[in-house]
Amino acid sequence: MDNRQIVIVSLPTDKLEASHFEMQTVAVPEPGDGEVLCRTLALTVGAGQRAGLQGSASYAAAPKSGIVMGGTAVARVEASNADGLAVGTLVTCPSGWQDYAVHKASGVHVVEAGGDPAHHLGVYGTNGLTAYFGLFDLGEPKAGQTVVVSAAAGSVGHIVGQMAKITGCRVVGVAGSDEKCHLLTDDLGFDTAVNYKSPDFRQEFRDACGDGIDIYFDNTGGEVLGGALRRMKPHGRIVCCGVVSQYDTGNPAPGPRGIPGLLVNNRVRMEGFLVFDYADRYGEARTKMREWVESGELKPLQDEFHGLEEAPSAFIDMLAGGNVGTRIIRVAD
Amino acid sequence: MDNRQIVIVSLPTDKLEASHFEMQTVAVPEPGDGEVLCRTLALTVGAGQRAGLQGSASYAAAPKSGIVMGGTAVARVEASNADGLAVGTLVTCPSGWQDYAVHKASGVHVVEAGGDPAHHLGVYGTNGLTAYFGLFDLGEPKAGQTVVVSAAAGSVGHIVGQMAKITGCRVVGVAGSDEKCHLLTDDLGFDTAVNYKSPDFRQEFRDACGDGIDIYFDNTGGEVLGGALRRMKPHGRIVCCGVVSQYDTGNPAPGPRGIPGLLVNNRVRMEGFLVFDYADRYGEARTKMREWVESGELKPLQDEFHGLEEAPSAFIDMLAGGNVGTRIIRVAD
Repeated sequence: MDNRQIVIVSLPTDKLEASHFEMQTVAVPEPGDGEVLCRTLALTVGAGQRAGLQGSASYAAAPKSGIVMGGTAVARVEASNADGLAVGTLVTCPSGWQDYAVHKASGVHVVEAGGDPAHHLGVYGTNGLTAYFGLFDLGEPKAGQTVVVSAAAGSVGHIVGQMAKITGCRVVGVAGSDEKCHLLTDDLGFDTAVNYKSPDFRQEFRDACGDGIDIYFDNTGGEVLGGALRRMKPHGRIVCCGVVSQYDTGNPAPGPRGIPGLLVNNRVRMEGFLVFDYADRYGEARTKMREWVESGELKPLQDEFHGLEEAPSAFIDMLAGGNVGTRIIRVAD
Repeated sequence: MDNRQIVIVSLPTDKLEASHFEMQTVAVPEPGDGEVLCRTLALTVGAGQRAGLQGSASYAAAPKSGIVMGGTAVARVEASNADGLAVGTLVTCPSGWQDYAVHKASGVHVVEAGGDPAHHLGVYGTNGLTAYFGLFDLGEPKAGQTVVVSAAAGSVGHIVGQMAKITGCRVVGVAGSDEKCHLLTDDLGFDTAVNYKSPDFRQEFRDACGDGIDIYFDNTGGEVLGGALRRMKPHGRIVCCGVVSQYDTGNPAPGPRGIPGLLVNNRVRMEGFLVFDYADRYGEARTKMREWVESGELKPLQDEFHGLEEAPSAFIDMLAGGNVGTRIIRVAD
């Protein structure tokens, strides 16, 4: 039986391109003692993976070529030498970009069957958990406050904005197209949204922020962060979640002007976090989010590519802002 | 009776120079109803005043020329039309750079007589209070942690470092001369100190930080902040107190590289503050600091200029790093 794999053939020195990847076919591996063989059903791609290739992600190993591209999948156990993990069990696992992978039993996370398995990669996966702990633990939103989210139509941003609305906040989204902005306000209940590619972005952003920002949930860094810094209210919070504007390059920009002066003047707290630190509270977050999804208050979005061979272009397109919600690559049914 | 005043004749567009100031002599003003006439005994100058002239201090009015230069003094009530403020009372007040000033009773703060009145401008004044609330409330130091302080021989820094030692921390000072570094380690008990003007600063700083920084108390911004960002431990705190490296210029540098990426990777909290927000807890801080000063655990340092006419050069020299501890200008006995 064949296992298709997508291998990193060279590391990007500037923008990532399809030529950095190559498909190869090898034999499907056999699970050893205490191991399971998993069939990849769906993969997700996220901006953090580009940080990993850049060597700027503390949570990833040093980037190297000649290995299967990393990534998280929802997968089905196809063969098992591990107690308690029966064939047919649905799991999430660090499969990488391939059809099959062998994992230790401790390396997979069993998920509930039922519904779209891809949700375990989105709202109930790292994206949703990141949105939840970043917004509630670092942002500390209160009803009536103004929350601004960048990459607001992205995998994390669209969940952040909706949870801020559930909390009673006024929510401003920043996204990269008018179409995304309409989606945010018309379908997801954002109060307003601004296209950062608009020639009048500065003025539109200022108008959208009204009397200032209580919480800026930053997925991008760069110029949107710079703009938000100048609009923070006293004692505002900046939740540093990601820096997608600076990942797909060999030459990241310096930090925004006004660091640290604007933090001092406005007594602003700017804090970075990694979701993995909250692992012992994932259950709490998933319970809450499941309630909101089931009540219809929280609409998780995803967009889809079909076929393992599409993973590189799905990833590159996402880095250019092509995605809406969690980007999924369907690999098998 | 004459009142000498130092007036801002033009605003600096780049470095501040003596020619931006001029001395003039006017009549001593008369206190109205509910007012007091105060005789300036000693002034202090601090980096925040340069931020005020730059227009980058949220706590100051927009800068303008043609007015008496602002500043805080310890002063003696010379004439009083205010109940409860007898002639001879010692106060601190926003006198500006002049021999005499009239204030409303509510605009002055009565201080205890006894000891050097200049201490009310240093350890028991804004400098000491800033050090106290920044270190303890934002930094949250614990015994055994590594605390790095920039402008460590300065008015705030030398108090921060000593309070961190009292808490049982390992303390690293960053200062602008070998002489200051020796003062920090030999006289004030810092564990080590690094001269940021040394050609080997990067390596020396890395060595001094050991396995990383728990708390960086930032008085400077700029390159020292950039270096500290790269050495923060996971969950470290950066206390943003001031940006002296960027005040005396018409062209402040962009923020350091790695904002916000390094904050995310290391889950670092970076927070600005202004001491005025803690006004209802000044008593608590002064009581603690008085205990430490009286026990000899905390040595407040000051250096002195003599004569109101020296204020501009004392200020300019301080901005170039000339001061050790709180810079005082003695105006009258």
